[in-house]
Amino acid sequence: MEKPGSILLTILRDGQRSLWDILSRWPYSIRELRETLERLHAEGWIERSGDRWVEIRLTERGREASRALVGVEDEGGACPACEGKGIRLPEAWWRRFRELTEERPLPVAEYDQGFMRPEDAVARVAFMHRMGDVADREIVLIGDDDLVSVALAVTGLPRRIVVIDVDERLGAFIERANREQGFAIEFRPLDIRRPLPPDLTQRFDVFVTDPVETVPGFELFLSRAAASLRGRYAAGYFGLTTLEASLSKWHRLQQLVLRMNFVITDVLRDFSLYPERENRWERFYASYAMMSLFHIEGHLPDRDWYRSSFFRIEAVAPPQPTILGECALSETELYFDEETLATPRAGVS
Amino acid sequence: MEKPGSILLTILRDGQRSLWDILSRWPYSIRELRETLERLHAEGWIERSGDRWVEIRLTERGREASRALVGVEDEGGACPACEGKGIRLPEAWWRRFRELTEERPLPVAEYDQGFMRPEDAVARVAFMHRMGDVADREIVLIGDDDLVSVALAVTGLPRRIVVIDVDERLGAFIERANREQGFAIEFRPLDIRRPLPPDLTQRFDVFVTDPVETVPGFELFLSRAAASLRGRYAAGYFGLTTLEASLSKWHRLQQLVLRMNFVITDVLRDFSLYPERENRWERFYASYAMMSLFHIEGHLPDRDWYRSSFFRIEAVAPPQPTILGECALSETELYFDEETLATPRAGVS
Repeated sequence: MEKPGSILLTILRDGQRSLWDILSRWPYSIRELRETLERLHAEGWIERSGDRWVEIRLTERGREASRALVGVEDEGGACPACEGKGIRLPEAWWRRFRELTEERPLPVAEYDQGFMRPEDAVARVAFMHRMGDVADREIVLIGDDDLVSVALAVTGLPRRIVVIDVDERLGAFIERANREQGFAIEFRPLDIRRPLPPDLTQRFDVFVTDPVETVPGFELFLSRAAASLRGRYAAGYFGLTTLEASLSKWHRLQQLVLRMNFVITDVLRDFSLYPERENRWERFYASYAMMSLFHIEGHLPDRDWYRSSFFRIEAVAPPQPTILGECALSETELYFDEETLATPRAGVS
Repeated sequence: MEKPGSILLTILRDGQRSLWDILSRWPYSIRELRETLERLHAEGWIERSGDRWVEIRLTERGREASRALVGVEDEGGACPACEGKGIRLPEAWWRRFRELTEERPLPVAEYDQGFMRPEDAVARVAFMHRMGDVADREIVLIGDDDLVSVALAVTGLPRRIVVIDVDERLGAFIERANREQGFAIEFRPLDIRRPLPPDLTQRFDVFVTDPVETVPGFELFLSRAAASLRGRYAAGYFGLTTLEASLSKWHRLQQLVLRMNFVITDVLRDFSLYPERENRWERFYASYAMMSLFHIEGHLPDRDWYRSSFFRIEAVAPPQPTILGECALSETELYFDEETLATPRAGVS
């Protein structure tokens, strides 16, 4: 059996699971899960609750096959101390960050927002610090609904922190944090379909971004990020899911990364988890393409499942953005392709 | 100051350090360390013991500059439980592997051998298992001086394990392990400058290799590895240092990876440490180009310093080796370039 199929049998080995539970362990795209479920169903390995992919279990044939998969531990084998991140989470940074971001703005669908767990944002900063990319560095955040800017400011280490974001609510939140905490985070409202202004071009040692996961969207984010950097040795960090970006898409995105003169120095799997409850984005689900694809309208997640891997890249020569001027892409072209099945349609709020 | 320089000042902030100690923390190539040392020396930031780069310390000017680098913790911030690997090390596998490999063959210079710590070989297997690439898989090791084949066999999980190596001593060791432990590891003596025989071509789900770190050498190893795999979803694992492969070289190697239809799914920094004492390769050092480059002939390491990062790649389409037939490269072309400064010249034994 092909690998996706055997992974699915392994996940189901210990009994029935919800689609969300399967998704939380699934290493490929949502679209490939749909294809694998359909194929295994047609071949008689699994069954579901009626027409819907709400709950999935093995058939007798599937149970027999899965019994041959002896010895595979279910829970993976990630280090329990760091949840597989390899990082010691600095408690003081985490506590302060959590406190400061308690009243953060909730995500808005039209910007495809959604924030990771506070500990994951702080772990990003801790990892960046370990790589020498925090202390004394000038750092730009291209999009910042995770408020990594605040997590960076909490450390007191960067020389400069600039946030570029289209969402003015973030600007207001950051302004208040600056006032109340004595931070000096600069906020610059900008739709990144416009080029960076000259005073933000070739000015930074480090960028952090969570790009849109379509190929044209990623290319645009990475181009703006590349344009922001000083040159060789500058580093970039971004998150990328396997859920809405298949490994075939990763392949194209990595070609873009290399073409822009970056090398991939670190890829940390499933570094960030996006908590359902805190994001309160139940209202978004109705507009996700995946809901009708799996026939699960109205069945909201029973657990956190959306996660992303964390990339570090470094410039081996002056970064070469492939998009330089205005970008004429429509919102639809920017945000949607056939794999972005958990991205909200604008107008949901 | 450019990043390599500021990293060096940070490393030296707490006092004099040996070259080996600096190398154990240095994230760039040995050659770039030499260049950075020379530059910082010429500019008056650091001083050394006479003509030799044996011990290095900051000058008064360097100390002042480094005092501005407040707050940077020295020891990185790796998770202490897993040393930054993110993996729970299965104790039983480790104990058994250590026991079995106690009398392993010592490295031979002409094959550019050297083995990682036993816990790091087992951590490789644990990570591979977490990725679904051990249980029930057919796995080929291209070169196996780390004896990852034995670590795999200890788990009892793979369906098939094949070792391809030019060193018949490894074959004898594996044969004995098979006999005494009931393993079924297959050993196939082969110089990988020859193509894989048909019965090893397109036969495997997973490869593991530690390629030579020249560009032509890497291309050859990766081509043979690619030829061994079944097709899409097959996975590959390899180690790569930053010490003998600069990030500029990584950039070229990653282009090769993508060109052969692989995507990079994981990069785990400094996953493997190569222990000086157990490898007993003191005799190799005299032939390392780095010894004369740093004028440190006769000064052997006071600590383990050589380490490699661990890559996982996955085929997004049938792998396309760029080298198919016989490879006419000489040993020198295969093993040496201007960055391979800690690779022994053949004839040292």
